[in-house]
Amino acid sequence: MFIAFEGGEGSGKSTQAARLAARLDALLTREPGGTALGEQLRSLLLTTGPDVDARAEALLMAAARAQHVAEVIRPALAAGRTVVTDRFTGSSLAYQGHARGLGVEEVGRLSWFATDGLEPDVTVLLEVGAEVARSRRVGSEPDRIESAGDEFHRNVAAGYAALAAADDRWIVVDGDGDPDMIEARVWAAVRSVVDLDG
Amino acid sequence: MFIAFEGGEGSGKSTQAARLAARLDALLTREPGGTALGEQLRSLLLTTGPDVDARAEALLMAAARAQHVAEVIRPALAAGRTVVTDRFTGSSLAYQGHARGLGVEEVGRLSWFATDGLEPDVTVLLEVGAEVARSRRVGSEPDRIESAGDEFHRNVAAGYAALAAADDRWIVVDGDGDPDMIEARVWAAVRSVVDLDG
Repeated sequence: MFIAFEGGEGSGKSTQAARLAARLDALLTREPGGTALGEQLRSLLLTTGPDVDARAEALLMAAARAQHVAEVIRPALAAGRTVVTDRFTGSSLAYQGHARGLGVEEVGRLSWFATDGLEPDVTVLLEVGAEVARSRRVGSEPDRIESAGDEFHRNVAAGYAALAAADDRWIVVDGDGDPDMIEARVWAAVRSVVDLDG
Repeated sequence: MFIAFEGGEGSGKSTQAARLAARLDALLTREPGGTALGEQLRSLLLTTGPDVDARAEALLMAAARAQHVAEVIRPALAAGRTVVTDRFTGSSLAYQGHARGLGVEEVGRLSWFATDGLEPDVTVLLEVGAEVARSRRVGSEPDRIESAGDEFHRNVAAGYAALAAADDRWIVVDGDGDPDMIEARVWAAVRSVVDLDG
């Protein structure tokens, strides 16, 4: 079983991915990152100046994903473990494909190359209002992508909504409220589509 | 005018790219590298352990190329300069597509995405025998790709030969001999296909 969490900055997905992974005794991992190479790329991507070309960014994300799939995800799945990842292909489609305007289809092809066709069984999209997301981002120094502006974040949210509408392996969970409440919603939603013990 | 040099390790292409660029008063650049982001990726790629996934490697090369095209090559061409690059799409096709077995067509699509369709007007392939290449590599500490073994290097050479045979914008130059002699051959070959002063 391979489960991905998606959502904008401040959606609470990292917290909820960790909680679901603990509940399922699953391997918890994240993108970009999840491997030594991926963490180097993550740091490169989030700290480099505003002059990273949009295509280069999409390719770096795909490179981190390729390493992540080959080194971490496929071996864990092959060993019978459930894997929960904080971001996967959906992030590339929403951020680079939709919000940066590179095209969902073209970015999807990159990701397909990177993963050699591996897709999550379930993708959980945490949706929060723009105000809630902004308030959750306050207090920490924003990285390059977090500081990209409200219009960019609205475009990301619209991209996610379109992806969820088009694929019935996506489930949308209301991300407003306290973490325990959201955890209960995630658990109910995931149990409604897959057969899980835990 | 956009000219790429291609060839295996020890083919002498870096020397000859520099000489042609000087003769044409062209901008000399290289891949992976050519930009701050690209140089970081170059160092990551050439020093990381042997466990870089082949797809991740191909995507990183494409990412470096995307940044290179957007930041360096297109602006120079738009300003009317001739650009000479030490490696371009041909390297990805020969190394990742052919020698690493990812497929020339799939890797070609990545590169097309990265360059947004920009292709060299001329690609100069420097061909040298395996013995000459090996002797030229002796003395410097081999990086990860240089140390990949004789069979890998033979596959790269075969990949290059196939690319040159399939595209009449490629010219093959004998890379055996001293640098002045090779420079003269390169100059004659380039002048035979494009109209150049210099």
